[in-house]
Amino acid sequence: MALVVIGGVAAGLSAAARARRIDPRLEIVVLEKGPVVSYGACGLPYFVEGRVREASQLIVYTPEYFRKERNIEVRTGARVVGISHPRREVALESGGRVHYEHLVIATGARCDTAGIAGAQQPHVFTLHTLDDAQRMRRFLREKQPRRAVVIGAGYIGVEVADALRRNGLRVTMLERSHNVLLRDDPRLTAAVHRQLEEHGVELRCGVSVDAIEPDRVADVPCGMVVIAAGFKPNVEIASEAGVEIGRTGAIRADDRMETSLPGVYAAGDCAEVTHLVTGRPAWIPLGTTANKTGRVAGANAAGGRQRFAGVVGTSIVGIFGMGFATTGLSPEQARAEGFSPLAARIEAPVRPRYFQGRKTTVELVADRPTRRLIGGSVIGEEGAAGRINVIAAALQSRLRVDDFEQLDLAYSPPFSPAWDPLLIAAQQLIKEL
Amino acid sequence: MALVVIGGVAAGLSAAARARRIDPRLEIVVLEKGPVVSYGACGLPYFVEGRVREASQLIVYTPEYFRKERNIEVRTGARVVGISHPRREVALESGGRVHYEHLVIATGARCDTAGIAGAQQPHVFTLHTLDDAQRMRRFLREKQPRRAVVIGAGYIGVEVADALRRNGLRVTMLERSHNVLLRDDPRLTAAVHRQLEEHGVELRCGVSVDAIEPDRVADVPCGMVVIAAGFKPNVEIASEAGVEIGRTGAIRADDRMETSLPGVYAAGDCAEVTHLVTGRPAWIPLGTTANKTGRVAGANAAGGRQRFAGVVGTSIVGIFGMGFATTGLSPEQARAEGFSPLAARIEAPVRPRYFQGRKTTVELVADRPTRRLIGGSVIGEEGAAGRINVIAAALQSRLRVDDFEQLDLAYSPPFSPAWDPLLIAAQQLIKEL
Repeated sequence: MALVVIGGVAAGLSAAARARRIDPRLEIVVLEKGPVVSYGACGLPYFVEGRVREASQLIVYTPEYFRKERNIEVRTGARVVGISHPRREVALESGGRVHYEHLVIATGARCDTAGIAGAQQPHVFTLHTLDDAQRMRRFLREKQPRRAVVIGAGYIGVEVADALRRNGLRVTMLERSHNVLLRDDPRLTAAVHRQLEEHGVELRCGVSVDAIEPDRVADVPCGMVVIAAGFKPNVEIASEAGVEIGRTGAIRADDRMETSLPGVYAAGDCAEVTHLVTGRPAWIPLGTTANKTGRVAGANAAGGRQRFAGVVGTSIVGIFGMGFATTGLSPEQARAEGFSPLAARIEAPVRPRYFQGRKTTVELVADRPTRRLIGGSVIGEEGAAGRINVIAAALQSRLRVDDFEQLDLAYSPPFSPAWDPLLIAAQQLIKEL
Repeated sequence: MALVVIGGVAAGLSAAARARRIDPRLEIVVLEKGPVVSYGACGLPYFVEGRVREASQLIVYTPEYFRKERNIEVRTGARVVGISHPRREVALESGGRVHYEHLVIATGARCDTAGIAGAQQPHVFTLHTLDDAQRMRRFLREKQPRRAVVIGAGYIGVEVADALRRNGLRVTMLERSHNVLLRDDPRLTAAVHRQLEEHGVELRCGVSVDAIEPDRVADVPCGMVVIAAGFKPNVEIASEAGVEIGRTGAIRADDRMETSLPGVYAAGDCAEVTHLVTGRPAWIPLGTTANKTGRVAGANAAGGRQRFAGVVGTSIVGIFGMGFATTGLSPEQARAEGFSPLAARIEAPVRPRYFQGRKTTVELVADRPTRRLIGGSVIGEEGAAGRINVIAAALQSRLRVDDFEQLDLAYSPPFSPAWDPLLIAAQQLIKEL
């Protein structure tokens, strides 16, 4: 066997597909522990909600498709329990062994419920696989719980809270830290808090959960619990095989996505990547990065030469119709990373007054001595993705706020105001610098 | 008098307002030839259409506002007929003279109808001022014309055609060149053509109009004609005063927006700016640039120090609900400017399949030897402004397509697909380079 890929979701299948394009004759085997491959994991909350009606809609390709159309062997139910790099083989739970020349580790991440007593009860869920989502939807239909607790206010937590609330449940979110969306950013947290409360979801920060009772969690009565906290990269089999683990706890890889073992690559939620603002390794598990690192790992494993520059930490999440988008560092994160940040935050309409433009909030963060942009956030019902992407492009280009303020952005009344909120934020930041 | 500004719309009032912020005690006089100031000229087609109900909605500030709140004297009906720089004074049509220490020329542009016989008939219009729009709306209501000809398929031409069609008129557009939207870009022209025809607007390219008959234009019978062609910068009084005119026909200014006469600044539609892709002066009259150059001219005229870097030629126009956005150079324009361009054009959905994402078209243009991005276009019902702005930021940062392909763009199913169409276009372009 030539190329073995462990994991059949975003990163693994991106790697396999890309390897096939680079080398039409390479033997490629994908080993997936679950029953299905190639599903849109980021769509799971929308399946729980009901906006996505059928689980099958989330499945992009079947193993048969890969076999017939791409000549890639995809084995489901194939859980890898060990890697022997000296022998160049992986061991399956079933007892079989698969030989490799090149290996891509795309084992993903998991929601670690080990620290929570009672996590195995039938009314307690995580939302990581298609099966999780189907179980959750069945439970909602059959048991009709009236009240739910969501543990963790990261992306999946708030998306699940939104989905459950739209299904009529009373929802309380319990978050251990004092921040939401994994970002030390009190203003963003306050805005998310407001949006959740306005739509009937209670958010309590600073609440640690170590046990789930049959009918309550931390004094909150509930008939259903979703654990969306304690995410960890699945690095155990890699680590046991001698693959170096980085300080973030995820697999260390170079810009070709090669690990410390030659010929062994890592991609997706199990791998570290370089954060282009800090220049340091970061673990930011997201679907886009999984696709990109998978593509690069697959190309290089098949003999190509591609590199992955890194990320700036861009993300967006919709909460009851409002987009919350962030990129780079918040002022708090920037300070912790040794920058001397200054931020400006403005509210401005997304279209001229006579076109009834609703307001959007833009925050830009610059590093004082260099005036370089190092972060930003955009909150709004419209245009949040487009605007955060412009900031992301600026971070990646290492633009100073003075250059950003000069951006030649598109204007026409149906689309935007003459002064885009991004430019108003930049003017404000320059004024304060 | 200290600072005199000729022109009271976007550039002129941006200059005056900015000058006031820089110097709270400066005497500032704005001379506007028309009866109103500070109106959203880009909103005029939407007032003609009826989507903007009242002309007053387009007026941002009144002369009284400027007098009371900003201590800026704004004179309407004050047409400047000459500038004597040696005497530091401007002459008004009324016979008066106004002394200046610093002068900002923001005389705008006009639609030159001189070459068209019959342009003065009551059923023939241009759409440049609030008065033009009001006359046009009155004519539509009172005369109820059933068929209109629009001469010129630039931005205003297509917006007016859209507005008239939505009012039930049959509309034929006649364009002298073989391109629309002032861009030598056959693919963009074909897409605009298709969109117009699908919504019942006929577009004929390669048709020169030199006469308007009482009931027809170039064999097209019609009860109404809009001339949206022959735009020229208003440079005559500046030129007569000795201000240098650039090769584009507009006023030459440096990056402080100062003209060849010291202390005399130019801003807005009458001025040239640097095109950051070609490095050469360009005349691209747009509202955003008017605001920005006005702000810079006003700051410097008041003793500040600001610079205007230039433009990359970003614009967007809505045609029957579809956004047509462009930035930088088309392949044809790039070739004419001495580049060796290569373009890739893709169509891809703006959201995952299970979220019913409609498709958008993205074209990216790179310069072959340097691999630098030099242009792009985005056509789509959603997200066209956001995506063209990311390309604009990349042009301004002189990104290579290889860097652009690595952009860390936001992803979440309600907002975008895992592979943004921008990145798919970049992958395609890299494949072809």
